[in-house]
Amino acid sequence: MNILFIMFDQLRFDYLSCAGHPHLHTPHIDSIADMGVRFTRAYVQSPVCGASRMSSYTGRYASSHGAQYNGYPLRVGEITLGDHLRGAGMGCWLIGKTHMVVDSAGMDRLGLARDSVIGARQAECGFDVWARDDGLWAQGPDGFYDAKRSPYNEYLKSKGYPGGNPWNDFANSAAQEGDIASGWFMANADKPANIAEEDSETPWLTSEAIRFIEQADGPWCAHVSYIKPHWPYIVPAPYHDMYGSNHVPAATRHPGERDNPHPVYGAFMNNAIGQAFARDEVRQKVIPAYMGLIKQIDDQMGRLFGFLKDTGRMDDTMIVITSDHGDYLGDHWLGEKDLFHDPSVKVPLIIYDPRAAADATRGTTCDALVQAIDLAPTFLEVAGGEPAGHILEGRSLSPLLYGEMPEDWRDFAISEYDYAMSPACTKLGVEPRDARLFMVTDKRWKFVHAEGGFRPMLFDMEADPEEYFDLGASTEHAEVIALMYDRLGRWGRRMSQRVTLSDTDIVEARGKSRRKGILLGVFDAADVDDDLTGKYRGPVPAGVQAQED
Amino acid sequence: MNILFIMFDQLRFDYLSCAGHPHLHTPHIDSIADMGVRFTRAYVQSPVCGASRMSSYTGRYASSHGAQYNGYPLRVGEITLGDHLRGAGMGCWLIGKTHMVVDSAGMDRLGLARDSVIGARQAECGFDVWARDDGLWAQGPDGFYDAKRSPYNEYLKSKGYPGGNPWNDFANSAAQEGDIASGWFMANADKPANIAEEDSETPWLTSEAIRFIEQADGPWCAHVSYIKPHWPYIVPAPYHDMYGSNHVPAATRHPGERDNPHPVYGAFMNNAIGQAFARDEVRQKVIPAYMGLIKQIDDQMGRLFGFLKDTGRMDDTMIVITSDHGDYLGDHWLGEKDLFHDPSVKVPLIIYDPRAAADATRGTTCDALVQAIDLAPTFLEVAGGEPAGHILEGRSLSPLLYGEMPEDWRDFAISEYDYAMSPACTKLGVEPRDARLFMVTDKRWKFVHAEGGFRPMLFDMEADPEEYFDLGASTEHAEVIALMYDRLGRWGRRMSQRVTLSDTDIVEARGKSRRKGILLGVFDAADVDDDLTGKYRGPVPAGVQAQED
Repeated sequence: MNILFIMFDQLRFDYLSCAGHPHLHTPHIDSIADMGVRFTRAYVQSPVCGASRMSSYTGRYASSHGAQYNGYPLRVGEITLGDHLRGAGMGCWLIGKTHMVVDSAGMDRLGLARDSVIGARQAECGFDVWARDDGLWAQGPDGFYDAKRSPYNEYLKSKGYPGGNPWNDFANSAAQEGDIASGWFMANADKPANIAEEDSETPWLTSEAIRFIEQADGPWCAHVSYIKPHWPYIVPAPYHDMYGSNHVPAATRHPGERDNPHPVYGAFMNNAIGQAFARDEVRQKVIPAYMGLIKQIDDQMGRLFGFLKDTGRMDDTMIVITSDHGDYLGDHWLGEKDLFHDPSVKVPLIIYDPRAAADATRGTTCDALVQAIDLAPTFLEVAGGEPAGHILEGRSLSPLLYGEMPEDWRDFAISEYDYAMSPACTKLGVEPRDARLFMVTDKRWKFVHAEGGFRPMLFDMEADPEEYFDLGASTEHAEVIALMYDRLGRWGRRMSQRVTLSDTDIVEARGKSRRKGILLGVFDAADVDDDLTGKYRGPVPAGVQAQED
Repeated sequence: MNILFIMFDQLRFDYLSCAGHPHLHTPHIDSIADMGVRFTRAYVQSPVCGASRMSSYTGRYASSHGAQYNGYPLRVGEITLGDHLRGAGMGCWLIGKTHMVVDSAGMDRLGLARDSVIGARQAECGFDVWARDDGLWAQGPDGFYDAKRSPYNEYLKSKGYPGGNPWNDFANSAAQEGDIASGWFMANADKPANIAEEDSETPWLTSEAIRFIEQADGPWCAHVSYIKPHWPYIVPAPYHDMYGSNHVPAATRHPGERDNPHPVYGAFMNNAIGQAFARDEVRQKVIPAYMGLIKQIDDQMGRLFGFLKDTGRMDDTMIVITSDHGDYLGDHWLGEKDLFHDPSVKVPLIIYDPRAAADATRGTTCDALVQAIDLAPTFLEVAGGEPAGHILEGRSLSPLLYGEMPEDWRDFAISEYDYAMSPACTKLGVEPRDARLFMVTDKRWKFVHAEGGFRPMLFDMEADPEEYFDLGASTEHAEVIALMYDRLGRWGRRMSQRVTLSDTDIVEARGKSRRKGILLGVFDAADVDDDLTGKYRGPVPAGVQAQED
């Protein structure tokens, strides 16, 4: 068995036809849902790229691995999906984006060389790299261009696109009267990117995935990780004008949300992004481009899945389709991600398992509360590895794929957000270490605790599925809030760092110190069995010195 | 400035004359208290050797570093006192015990060789080793003898003590009619150890400390870490009969404690150790030996401090005297440590700072809530290092040494205990990961939460300083219990794993991604300053390919 672990970046849970989108038709992704299980309550462990991905790649909560925001290095030695899978005999490869930042100080402290196999894996959060492409490159003295990290840009150069940064100048810009019309400016989102469609980023990465699979040997997990439909919101023809304003849904927002909002929510509503997405012209430009990017993705999925069928890989490959977080797109007066409304924190998750045991669930949906950190243990099980419940904080999804609903399945999901880097932190006067939000959700209530002395937020998703009415200050809901704090407290006390010993190790070690000779509470040798006390009895070795006093 | 970081093992907070012991006279330790500050509310982060020490050596709570019990390996890469101090130009040396267990799997995963400097420090929780002696060695096929780790045993051999394990046969046994009378059996605690006093473990380690200081160059921190007065409870003449039954205090225990106790407390009361220490004959044998061991310690401190005075080191050396936990000695129907009554979780802590700033507090006591994890940041400050508040979870004690009481000093202290290895875990039917206790104490209330569905424990230390009456089930105390759970919740959410970035790093990085060219929420180039958007404007590079469609 192999695993094709496909992740999109910033793909909303509801922008797929299988999830009920009224205008987007995504038949290829839908075909996988038809063959597998679509999870309708899949939550990421942080609604921001870096933190969410580090949770997926370690199987651990953000506050367990510590890389809680974009650009926070993942501490050296943190055990990754790659460590788990390789330990079980499965390769673990990267084709695309991770958002990993290396812990250089930690690497130096441990003397790990970047060009050693161990060091390279540490630097790439455990993956062996086929192609790493984080998709964001701005040239110049204050830019962040690194040729080794931009195989796509290098590909464009090799195809004859001129200049140092065709990623920017062509793939993510339109042309207008000889000038760049940058995709960074949302006013340009309705223009076609100045690039041949087959040279754009999504088809290129799909080709890389196919190239990888063609040569792959032995069981593999391939993390095919697309930057799209993430901004810059710009897409080449013909996708740039497939959708228009008649396909842009009304924003899921309510005037009441702006009336005395929770201070943290208020700060995000009032930042540049929130203000931009509150404008209709922004949504009218951006959403059709976002939909075009998804349509292009789906067409490329058709190519990829066709290749799998043609080569027989569809029979021995688990396929996972998910995203690292969603996109507000103006819902709740917000843009981007960051907070915990469903458009941001809930993601698509579709899993196709070719094995017969999964026949019972093909084409079904599952509304169990699942988390992105459940993937790592699921994959480890596919690879035939020992469960590592002392390290992996998620839970294998296998029973759900086989149509069983374990009675002790979790009754709440957790997500976290660290906004210490954000202007909101400064504006709210919060210390960096207190700039943290914690979501606890069950199927009815979504609760958010904000560190730093704020009241909590609470939404009744049954009575208020749009999450408009914040009940965090409601005295009538004191009991629900207490329950949510109790859950958060229990989660906060979880054992997350005893990573060097499993529960099994502990059970096996019980009584060992006694067998080794550590005898506590023994008054007299006769109190304890001979086999334990024997070593402490018998004659003193010959030749004892005279005792001085 | 140097730091002499003296730790005893299992020394109760109240078995010193400066702490009010009615019979023990410890003038040498008292002399340091006279020159410094004695902390009367110093708590260890776990009342068991290994976990407590790993907290002291990392400056982090047990559930942050994960080595929550004896024998749990400290994860590779965990940042230690040695890392912090060496980074500030101060050496960090070990003379004595640590109870460190190496994370062999982690070392292998990162390719760290034991015989490299980096690997050796990883294996010794960050110390450079002058002499490591964990003090417990039982020979034989199922024993745990390692000559490299037992310099004291090797010393005894070099002095002519015969056999493979003179540590056991002489230093920790008495002789009776030619047979070993092992110190492991408490019935023998009143006999003199079969060894010349100057060859016993405490004088030997003191000599090693002196040898280290004699040759030390540059600023150093020396962790002089004695195994005594830890069991085996046996001491050479003349200390073996200095104290008798007239010096044994009545046990601090109450019949009511045995009446329907908290299940976890009940399990510990009923284990072999608790049952042994409930017997008067055990206390009568053990406590005089324990006192003799302390008296010997104090005499050796006289030797060590005399050496410091004679060599001028008393003027440039901070002296810290503490312990890794206490000893119940039959109080509360318990022996050893493990739980959170003061005799177990509260430790002696005396700090002498030779600098003039500390003149104001010489000879005083301080009743602020302090924790063992406060030592690492205190030491780092002495070494002149940058504060590392994102890694170190304690707080420098400097202000308290200078007579200042910061207004925002902590209002509660935390300690943890993992009993997954204990028979109590099996007996109570608790899963290994739930076999955990959390203490929250302030100056009045001591609260203990037990994971696994038990009620909490609560003691009113003002009305009930002996901690006899468990109010954990009292509805009258619901508010106090709620407050304690609120504190525990806050602590549980603490940021403990963002060890790769400091708060300062974060503040400095704010806005950096924007300056690098990541422009979010920008509709039109005109919305943003030229210096940010310039790189995205201007003519398309010459030679653009014709666009295909």
